[in-house]
Amino acid sequence: MATKSYNHFTVSIPQEWIAHVEINRPEKLNAFTEEMWLTLPKVFDALSDDPRVRVIILSGAGDKAFSAGLDLQSAAVPGSVFNPRPEDVADGARFATKFRRFAYKFQDCVSSIERCEKPVICVLHGISLGIAVDISVCADLRICTSNTSFSVKEVDIGVASDVSTLSRLPKVVGSYSWVKEVCLTARTFGAEEALRVGLVNSIFENKAGAMQEASRIAAVIASKSPVAVQATKNFLDWNRDHDIATGLKYTAVFNAAAINTKDVPVAMAAARTKVTPKFEKL
Amino acid sequence: MATKSYNHFTVSIPQEWIAHVEINRPEKLNAFTEEMWLTLPKVFDALSDDPRVRVIILSGAGDKAFSAGLDLQSAAVPGSVFNPRPEDVADGARFATKFRRFAYKFQDCVSSIERCEKPVICVLHGISLGIAVDISVCADLRICTSNTSFSVKEVDIGVASDVSTLSRLPKVVGSYSWVKEVCLTARTFGAEEALRVGLVNSIFENKAGAMQEASRIAAVIASKSPVAVQATKNFLDWNRDHDIATGLKYTAVFNAAAINTKDVPVAMAAARTKVTPKFEKL
Amino acid sequence: MATKSYNHFTVSIPQEWIAHVEINRPEKLNAFTEEMWLTLPKVFDALSDDPRVRVIILSGAGDKAFSAGLDLQSAAVPGSVFNPRPEDVADGARFATKFRRFAYKFQDCVSSIERCEKPVICVLHGISLGIAVDISVCADLRICTSNTSFSVKEVDIGVASDVSTLSRLPKVVGSYSWVKEVCLTARTFGAEEALRVGLVNSIFENKAGAMQEASRIAAVIASKSPVAVQATKNFLDWNRDHDIATGLKYTAVFNAAAINTKDVPVAMAAARTKVTPKFEKL
Amino acid sequence: MATKSYNHFTVSIPQEWIAHVEINRPEKLNAFTEEMWLTLPKVFDALSDDPRVRVIILSGAGDKAFSAGLDLQSAAVPGSVFNPRPEDVADGARFATKFRRFAYKFQDCVSSIERCEKPVICVLHGISLGIAVDISVCADLRICTSNTSFSVKEVDIGVASDVSTLSRLPKVVGSYSWVKEVCLTARTFGAEEALRVGLVNSIFENKAGAMQEASRIAAVIASKSPVAVQATKNFLDWNRDHDIATGLKYTAVFNAAAINTKDVPVAMAAARTKVTPKFEKL
Amino acid sequence: MATKSYNHFTVSIPQEWIAHVEINRPEKLNAFTEEMWLTLPKVFDALSDDPRVRVIILSGAGDKAFSAGLDLQSAAVPGSVFNPRPEDVADGARFATKFRRFAYKFQDCVSSIERCEKPVICVLHGISLGIAVDISVCADLRICTSNTSFSVKEVDIGVASDVSTLSRLPKVVGSYSWVKEVCLTARTFGAEEALRVGLVNSIFENKAGAMQEASRIAAVIASKSPVAVQATKNFLDWNRDHDIATGLKYTAVFNAAAINTKDVPVAMAAARTKVTPKFEKL
Amino acid sequence: MATKSYNHFTVSIPQEWIAHVEINRPEKLNAFTEEMWLTLPKVFDALSDDPRVRVIILSGAGDKAFSAGLDLQSAAVPGSVFNPRPEDVADGARFATKFRRFAYKFQDCVSSIERCEKPVICVLHGISLGIAVDISVCADLRICTSNTSFSVKEVDIGVASDVSTLSRLPKVVGSYSWVKEVCLTARTFGAEEALRVGLVNSIFENKAGAMQEASRIAAVIASKSPVAVQATKNFLDWNRDHDIATGLKYTAVFNAAAINTKDVPVAMAAARTKVTPKFEKL
Repeated sequence: MATKSYNHFTVSIPQEWIAHVEINRPEKLNAFTEEMWLTLPKVFDALSDDPRVRVIILSGAGDKAFSAGLDLQSAAVPGSVFNPRPEDVADGARFATKFRRFAYKFQDCVSSIERCEKPVICVLHGISLGIAVDISVCADLRICTSNTSFSVKEVDIGVASDVSTLSRLPKVVGSYSWVKEVCLTARTFGAEEALRVGLVNSIFENKAGAMQEASRIAAVIASKSPVAVQATKNFLDWNRDHDIATGLKYTAVFNAAAINTKDVPVAMAAARTKVTPKFEKL
Repeated sequence: MATKSYNHFTVSIPQEWIAHVEINRPEKLNAFTEEMWLTLPKVFDALSDDPRVRVIILSGAGDKAFSAGLDLQSAAVPGSVFNPRPEDVADGARFATKFRRFAYKFQDCVSSIERCEKPVICVLHGISLGIAVDISVCADLRICTSNTSFSVKEVDIGVASDVSTLSRLPKVVGSYSWVKEVCLTARTFGAEEALRVGLVNSIFENKAGAMQEASRIAAVIASKSPVAVQATKNFLDWNRDHDIATGLKYTAVFNAAAINTKDVPVAMAAARTKVTPKFEKL
Repeated sequence: MATKSYNHFTVSIPQEWIAHVEINRPEKLNAFTEEMWLTLPKVFDALSDDPRVRVIILSGAGDKAFSAGLDLQSAAVPGSVFNPRPEDVADGARFATKFRRFAYKFQDCVSSIERCEKPVICVLHGISLGIAVDISVCADLRICTSNTSFSVKEVDIGVASDVSTLSRLPKVVGSYSWVKEVCLTARTFGAEEALRVGLVNSIFENKAGAMQEASRIAAVIASKSPVAVQATKNFLDWNRDHDIATGLKYTAVFNAAAINTKDVPVAMAAARTKVTPKFEKL
Repeated sequence: MATKSYNHFTVSIPQEWIAHVEINRPEKLNAFTEEMWLTLPKVFDALSDDPRVRVIILSGAGDKAFSAGLDLQSAAVPGSVFNPRPEDVADGARFATKFRRFAYKFQDCVSSIERCEKPVICVLHGISLGIAVDISVCADLRICTSNTSFSVKEVDIGVASDVSTLSRLPKVVGSYSWVKEVCLTARTFGAEEALRVGLVNSIFENKAGAMQEASRIAAVIASKSPVAVQATKNFLDWNRDHDIATGLKYTAVFNAAAINTKDVPVAMAAARTKVTPKFEKL
Repeated sequence: MATKSYNHFTVSIPQEWIAHVEINRPEKLNAFTEEMWLTLPKVFDALSDDPRVRVIILSGAGDKAFSAGLDLQSAAVPGSVFNPRPEDVADGARFATKFRRFAYKFQDCVSSIERCEKPVICVLHGISLGIAVDISVCADLRICTSNTSFSVKEVDIGVASDVSTLSRLPKVVGSYSWVKEVCLTARTFGAEEALRVGLVNSIFENKAGAMQEASRIAAVIASKSPVAVQATKNFLDWNRDHDIATGLKYTAVFNAAAINTKDVPVAMAAARTKVTPKFEKL
Repeated sequence: MATKSYNHFTVSIPQEWIAHVEINRPEKLNAFTEEMWLTLPKVFDALSDDPRVRVIILSGAGDKAFSAGLDLQSAAVPGSVFNPRPEDVADGARFATKFRRFAYKFQDCVSSIERCEKPVICVLHGISLGIAVDISVCADLRICTSNTSFSVKEVDIGVASDVSTLSRLPKVVGSYSWVKEVCLTARTFGAEEALRVGLVNSIFENKAGAMQEASRIAAVIASKSPVAVQATKNFLDWNRDHDIATGLKYTAVFNAAAINTKDVPVAMAAARTKVTPKFEKL
């Protein structure tokens, strides 16, 4: 039941093995300031190593929004990369260096969710724009409420400043036709459409229902061998980025160490005796 | 309203920012002669650079066919690579050199549609065989009429002479099972099936309806920041062919220049004032 | 007509050009012993080269199961990599060498199905767990009965000992959300779900129906140019693992030899005369 | 003895099978104007297909320079990408689009030398700066005079505007230490150093000697099977960019057509009879 | 003349634009403790962004050693990954997770030298074993004294625990034969051999001479356009890991921003007037 | 002292841990028949797994030749792929299938030397043409006599029928200029040149001297930790074919198992006590 508070993120362990990360700025529809995305790796790197945690649920505080995207006020501060002063851009090459450093940092913070060794279940609800989609495609599973409204906003902002979506969305869903359409028009799409194309795993009527389902799946995953669960996540993400031959070699090399675990006899015994297995921490 | 005529292609700008390319050989079901596919890069390379154009709609003249595929009469001319004379194939290696030059040229012409910097919406209708599919998978969006009949004809021809489909179709739709089936059997499939697997974005009862929808989407895309639209197309195609890490680096490096655009303040102001933004040409 | 028997595999040619491989250990729900997976390449390498064969149907004997997975008794033998004796694992590095050799061998045996030059249609029915899925994703088409129950069992076993599924499943179906869910929870899924995500091509009420459909499709494929069919399979698998540019070059280079085949005039003549073409063996 | 003249390039066939391309602007030390690099693909694409040509020698007119690099006067024209007017760069994204088109065009023109199917021997002499190195690393062999002075000028110009060298030089020579040093300091290096690191194949006292050696090697290559020579060039360039497994597959697929050539019996007979073989054109 | 002290690293700016990083634990032959390699990214990430710095020289304090490798006492602490207690390795999979985290962290710390945006010149002297080589191959240039003795120690330690050398050395020098020999035998090699194979750029009689040469080259690099210098480093490292086509696209996209810099006119004017250019900070 | 005889290969263990493979057909200058290259994987796959063997020396019987290449009589048999009968090539596509199967088999047999887990030292002497070079570039180290004469014969044969050299040679030596020259001219080169470009590790006056040096190095390698030696070979070959990031991840994952070995304490103790370590078999 330990709870750790970051500014605008609440992290708790509501149930054995399951952490809950709540984006907590509901008065601003959970819009992200720079401080907030800089906090993401602090949250997820810690959970990645925390042996008390086997699965993570990520949701937004309040009913209105998972996140309304970047906080425009914070982005519009003169001198930021989105609103440079004339002197900032007087030398294009020097501004570009500054921008690249900013972009790599931003991308790396969002990628910390994917890099986290434990599976992450993202519960989307209500307004889910821009960075909400960037974040969600770094998660492993996505569950949403029927009133979720998604949008990839690049073409409405004037620059396709990708921090995650344009790189990952085509590899999450199967229809490239659909990806191109929602990215080139910035049109809003809803839960049913997200389910049909395979972006989300399931839809629930309201946030409570979605959270309950996330807890249910999280509990299922938490009951399984953590050695096998974390290797499975690791392999699927590796294989997305490599060819079959490189994938097969990597998994065999990885398992040369992982096979030698008590989880195997524990799992085998549980299968025989029909008793729920108890696996060691990882 | 400017119109440019190539032999068997009509190019017009029916609406601000939107070009219409019509394959224009309806008396032969828009079947492609060699001259016609050699014309493709002339059409699309010019539109790619034309600042008056932000989106392109590609359709076939007449109601019967988007295209019935390669013109067999033109392919069957003795001495062509499809119908070589004995002396042409007497030396397998020399014939192979000739064939490779031919194939690279053919592939490159079809690829000019994908290479075009502006999004291309392909409106398929009626008979859409062979090269019709090759072309359509180079486009960004695909809309079709309910009577469209598609077919990947390689196994009916006796040689899998790929100019585009076998390379791109598996990356356009999500089900590899389905791709293998339609490619290994050459069976015809219709609009509903194309929609279900994600090959097309939507279906309309007739060509007029499909064209109207294409115009509607084209107008939406044309109203968005052209800087962001063209970068979005560029990134999605790059990311299809590279891993996530290479994708994220590339987009950050690209945006170091692209961020510094008037489209951003124009878009921001438009969002604030709810007035339609007017973006500069690109 | 001709039938060849391997231990636990029956291979026949029930129809011209079509081979049937039956996993034949129904009394143990077709569970795989080590001897059985070591036999796979013998079966499929021979069919790959056999000019009498153009398509292969793979199914399990009996009604209850395509395969219940690895034979646990055989896996649990003390001294096997799944159940090493203390002295086997005393030196982690030496055990790892032994394990890697075992894993590469196992992967290579299963991959022989994908490597087979002729298309393979996998008919799944009843229990289809673990290695059943590993095998099925190496096939080209998948047909199943309505009572098929699939499961990716890694997280229930305690180790993600991938021999095929975790590398190939994400490239077979379109929804990465769904792949992660079934792999991280090991939950059973049925025929309808497999069809919806694109894992199987079609569902039939019972095994007889599924086998009949497999025969029907096999006959269609067998009636087509074997030069084009085998090149199509080859290209689609190559393109899954390479970028578009590498894919287009490879197909052009391959076809520089393949274009020069009698299958082309035979196919052309057949199209003209509406007579079924007869292609030479391959 | 046919001679074709392009503006600033002279192309002749001084000897059977051997073409000579001379950069011909000696009064400006063969410095490249935009028109000149736009001419490169016209020259090399034509030679690539010309059956009278089996090897190409590329040199610069006059004794002073192979090439002194880009013509600065032509680069400094207001409105060029190197010297944009304020209005050209007012919108960074729009200028970037213009620049990318320019850079891709420039790179593609220089790459035409590498793309040429026939081996290219580059004879460097005297001043060989900037684009001289860009061009030389696209050639297959490099021969130089003892007075050649090389330099990679990027860091002296203020921008690493790579058209070839920074991509190819690390793959031409073996010492990455040396590549970094000459690229980061822009220091001039001479013939001996170029030979030691493997950038050039040999050194001759003067241009006449170097040209004579180029002719000698060209004659050797021209006397060999053109089928094998052109495949060898093709394979080595492919393998530079792909892993071993992809390389071996590609060469086997390529040779499935190329093996079936009269060059093999011609070569075999020549080996037996010690008579110089005569191969057909290619 | 600002000096910053980390534990066992001294960082100074002895000359305008040039930072000097000294490994400072001479009483232990600059052997690396865990604390020391954890400090590397603090040192190099700060210099990477520091606009006062354009080039970095890295050397070891004292005359005896650049570094004698890992501090064995620190590695041998019971409970470390190199000397685990029985309970640490009781579960092979759990130990493997701990080890991977350790190894990724270690690799990432060493890689911070390569990731640094400013060129790094490594001055090797005396004993240069194990991690000394790991570090040196992350640098851009390598200079050594005639008494430097190098060794890749993996096979003498009992495990090829690569943090850098086995991945990078084959891409730094040209002879794979030599790389295999020194890695498979762990034999010591000296300065002359390192120069011959291209591992080092030059040799000096003593440390003072080598440091002077490093300063000289650093001053040359520091006098050049920092926009072009840093892009050159960036491009060469990118191109080592990507094919030519991906390399050319990346550099063009990068330069679309970088071309628009005052360094170009400053460099041009300097070339015209023969006056040393003064470039802005970066 | 066990000796195993294959037809034309003699395998012995002349010294503890060291196997000697002798190509044994001196009366034909060790020219390779098809039977001989089909035997290669039998020899090397067995040694790869043999725990008595840690290093392999490969040489040719007799003084005249390591190998004179392919046995031309055996290659010229009518009906072989090198000398097909008219009916064999009547259908280009069918002949191509036969050829590809042949080429993949041939490549795979030669690659068994590279795939062997134990380091292979190739001692070249006298005539070393064609397949001699193909084989040698699969070995880890190459030692030769001063009278060795090498040649890459493709362009003299009429077809670049690569089984290894054109794929691997550019990755073994550093100068791409030199690789292109010897491959495009088929000229003979000697020991000194091979040493200069980094193809061989050292030269000895006669075969006895070269064999003695091979034994010396083999003994050094055999005295080292076999866990570390075999991992080092594995990593270097993996890294040749992958980028740095993929290389570092793979080595860390591999070592998560390999670190947990008795070789580490054995090596550490030996270093402390200056006694030769004794490592367990592998």
